[in-house]
Amino acid sequence: MAKEAKQDFVQHITPRSENFSQWYTDVVLKAELMDYAPVRGCMAMRPYGTRIWELIQAAMDKRFKETGHENVAMPMLIPESLLLKEAEHVEGFAPEVAWVTQGGSEVLTERLAIRPTSETMFCTMYARWIQSWRDLPMKYNQWCSVMRWEKTTRPFLRTSEFWWQEGHTMHATAEEAQEETLQMLEVYREVCEDVLAMPVFAGQKSDKEKFAGARATYSVEAMMQDGKALQAGTSHNFGTNFSEPFEVQFLDKDGTLKHCHETSWGSSTRLIGAVIMTHGDERGLKLPPQIAPFQAVILPIAAHKGGVIERCEQVYQQLHEAGIRVKLDDRDNLSPGWKFNEWELKGVPLRLEIGPRDIENGVASYMRRDTFEKGTLPLDSLAEGVKELLNDIQRSMFAQAKAFMDEHTKDVHSYEELRQQVQTGYARAMWCGSRACEDNIKEETSATSRNMPFDQTPIGDSCVCCGQKADKVMYFSKAY
Amino acid sequence: MAKEAKQDFVQHITPRSENFSQWYTDVVLKAELMDYAPVRGCMAMRPYGTRIWELIQAAMDKRFKETGHENVAMPMLIPESLLLKEAEHVEGFAPEVAWVTQGGSEVLTERLAIRPTSETMFCTMYARWIQSWRDLPMKYNQWCSVMRWEKTTRPFLRTSEFWWQEGHTMHATAEEAQEETLQMLEVYREVCEDVLAMPVFAGQKSDKEKFAGARATYSVEAMMQDGKALQAGTSHNFGTNFSEPFEVQFLDKDGTLKHCHETSWGSSTRLIGAVIMTHGDERGLKLPPQIAPFQAVILPIAAHKGGVIERCEQVYQQLHEAGIRVKLDDRDNLSPGWKFNEWELKGVPLRLEIGPRDIENGVASYMRRDTFEKGTLPLDSLAEGVKELLNDIQRSMFAQAKAFMDEHTKDVHSYEELRQQVQTGYARAMWCGSRACEDNIKEETSATSRNMPFDQTPIGDSCVCCGQKADKVMYFSKAY
Repeated sequence: MAKEAKQDFVQHITPRSENFSQWYTDVVLKAELMDYAPVRGCMAMRPYGTRIWELIQAAMDKRFKETGHENVAMPMLIPESLLLKEAEHVEGFAPEVAWVTQGGSEVLTERLAIRPTSETMFCTMYARWIQSWRDLPMKYNQWCSVMRWEKTTRPFLRTSEFWWQEGHTMHATAEEAQEETLQMLEVYREVCEDVLAMPVFAGQKSDKEKFAGARATYSVEAMMQDGKALQAGTSHNFGTNFSEPFEVQFLDKDGTLKHCHETSWGSSTRLIGAVIMTHGDERGLKLPPQIAPFQAVILPIAAHKGGVIERCEQVYQQLHEAGIRVKLDDRDNLSPGWKFNEWELKGVPLRLEIGPRDIENGVASYMRRDTFEKGTLPLDSLAEGVKELLNDIQRSMFAQAKAFMDEHTKDVHSYEELRQQVQTGYARAMWCGSRACEDNIKEETSATSRNMPFDQTPIGDSCVCCGQKADKVMYFSKAY
Repeated sequence: MAKEAKQDFVQHITPRSENFSQWYTDVVLKAELMDYAPVRGCMAMRPYGTRIWELIQAAMDKRFKETGHENVAMPMLIPESLLLKEAEHVEGFAPEVAWVTQGGSEVLTERLAIRPTSETMFCTMYARWIQSWRDLPMKYNQWCSVMRWEKTTRPFLRTSEFWWQEGHTMHATAEEAQEETLQMLEVYREVCEDVLAMPVFAGQKSDKEKFAGARATYSVEAMMQDGKALQAGTSHNFGTNFSEPFEVQFLDKDGTLKHCHETSWGSSTRLIGAVIMTHGDERGLKLPPQIAPFQAVILPIAAHKGGVIERCEQVYQQLHEAGIRVKLDDRDNLSPGWKFNEWELKGVPLRLEIGPRDIENGVASYMRRDTFEKGTLPLDSLAEGVKELLNDIQRSMFAQAKAFMDEHTKDVHSYEELRQQVQTGYARAMWCGSRACEDNIKEETSATSRNMPFDQTPIGDSCVCCGQKADKVMYFSKAY
């Protein structure tokens, strides 16, 4: 049975090199991260995917609280009249809103949107909650799902309903709002790099690519293994764009009434897709230890032999008590070979095998999922050994992804170089700042402007597209 | 200013003895737990309310995971055709569903319900995920918000949108499903009593009061300070009521295809309302330490005097590092008197005052919110002292609520006794089991059957309503 099983697994994952997109879908489904729901474009997150999201949430939420943010839970339904209050915003979102028009047997007099995002709701409530400068800053976040009626959807990357967090904060001054905007961008960078082991470029979006209603949008952009960018988090400075129509005002120390300066920032279940496409390989998912539902799996070898199962159970207890997320796979109807494949597919960072010979030698045999490197760890200090290995796997996964990103990022000085570079990665180029050049590049190469790095040291003086004088450094690439 | 402030707080809370219902609403709003949203019947949970909910969630979720459950995230939209598959269920929920009929600019061919509950969605997905007995039990839970188009709403107690968890599990045998149903009821009992310090009666609902589609429903019922019951959690055994129409089947060990036996169980943000009405008093909210966003608040006294603020900051660090949720209120524009009132209103279990004299004596002065008892604790072992006090407050709040419940629960042997007892509390009575008697009692006394305790030792032999032979012990009371 083991042989057939092995083949079964292998034949169901399309090789990554052959068809990246199909490989992605195969991994998502076979690793049981999600399944398609009966409503078009919606997904059901299965336990394994949900647990990954919970671990990402915990890492984020901890940092949000440490930076002085509080969670709230806002209503999911937004009256149409509220959505209409900010012109750019409604233009950006109206085409993709799901509308509630009936409540029970009653036909509603005003349509209600299922939130596509909650700026309008937050502003409505902030206007009631903020009176004076003493109430500021007010820094709230919520974890929820939102709905955008998408035409083409892909698991985690673009779904009609997705799960996310949205932070919305109000400040007394423009400077404070800008500080907050950049602080939260840095939180996203840190979570991406230190938790997801996923290197990112942080920078500012062009006017064309910024959020509907924002004065400035910043993003962190990761690179997938097909060389495309994935926007992993965005942080917006709204200035008073929303606080004016929504009349979010405060009485300042000088006795005058002023509009609040607002920020908002979001990241979503897209991050799960990003992790898959940053780290995955031919065998499936490869999870960084910090967000792996199981950081290590224990497989009994020759489990029918005396003492093996008992020793595995002891080891399980030992690791569990040391705070390691560990799974003992004692299913007796599957061969070790089948289990090897399954846990590799599911991306568990560390496999531990314990059989009669290991026990005799006082060790557990291990295999690292990231490098497939094998070795042994002494059983009597196993928790320490495992923790060290997990730390090393986390670091080495980041290093590998960073090396890939560096390799696939190049400075380009001509349109031809740009065109070639965006086939396989990021192009860093000088850009004149005009929308026309962005549009041209997109039309001819499918690449879009990603962001302008904070380090704007020029790498030339003329626009990569039109050849006119340029003083902006911009990353271009194809993107998800 | 302190005086005015004090009066301001007091005059805004209606005395509990005068108008319990208005007192409740005042506390909810003044303690900033929630606010009304622009959509009728919906609420925005503010940070203080949300944090309480997060702490309840954490206590529940830990126990769900310990009992082998996994979280999932199901889509919020359910096609009408799925809702129609189980007859009783659709009849129970259809009148209160919010319907999505438009997606973007497209008019949908089938209406989509915002989930009022997710049995139908879980069953749809379970039917795809379950093949053989080896997949069972499958025990999933989700945290989300649901929508029921309510006509009359009250903060936390009944809102059109509310936040909850819903567990849905599938089992190979009827026995296992029944075990699970009772296990989760016990989890609810434990969380109510040990975490919320809120005593409950656990038992089985009558056929009339059971969930739409369930074979048996169990509940835990708490008692509010106006003597009314509040259903704090329910656990249902569905048998194969849903798995048959949804074709949730598994191949059993004997090679035959069988329908799964299903359970579901839920608890919601109603619990916050229950905590308010179980423990609150004339001064406002009274939170059990285990779910208090701040378990202790530190108030500097004569803060302008040298060393006071510094000492308070040290104490804050010390308690924070010991894992106590602590707040240092160093606002300099408010008097201690104002702050006393505010933190009492917000129900913080322990107030710590530190002034020059306290520092001189090496102590912090404290006041317990539950008993208003005052005393001092040595500063050099403050964390231990605070932890002990918090444990004692938790225990003593439960004891006080339990004494109230016991006092307001009586065995009744006649209809007249029943009628009187349900004016102020629970009546335990013999009941013949007929729906007619339940209907009569409800019509004439406004009391409903709450649940049948597991201990069914008879306290008589004739029905409290019709006088016929009766063998069921049932609790009756008015309820939220």
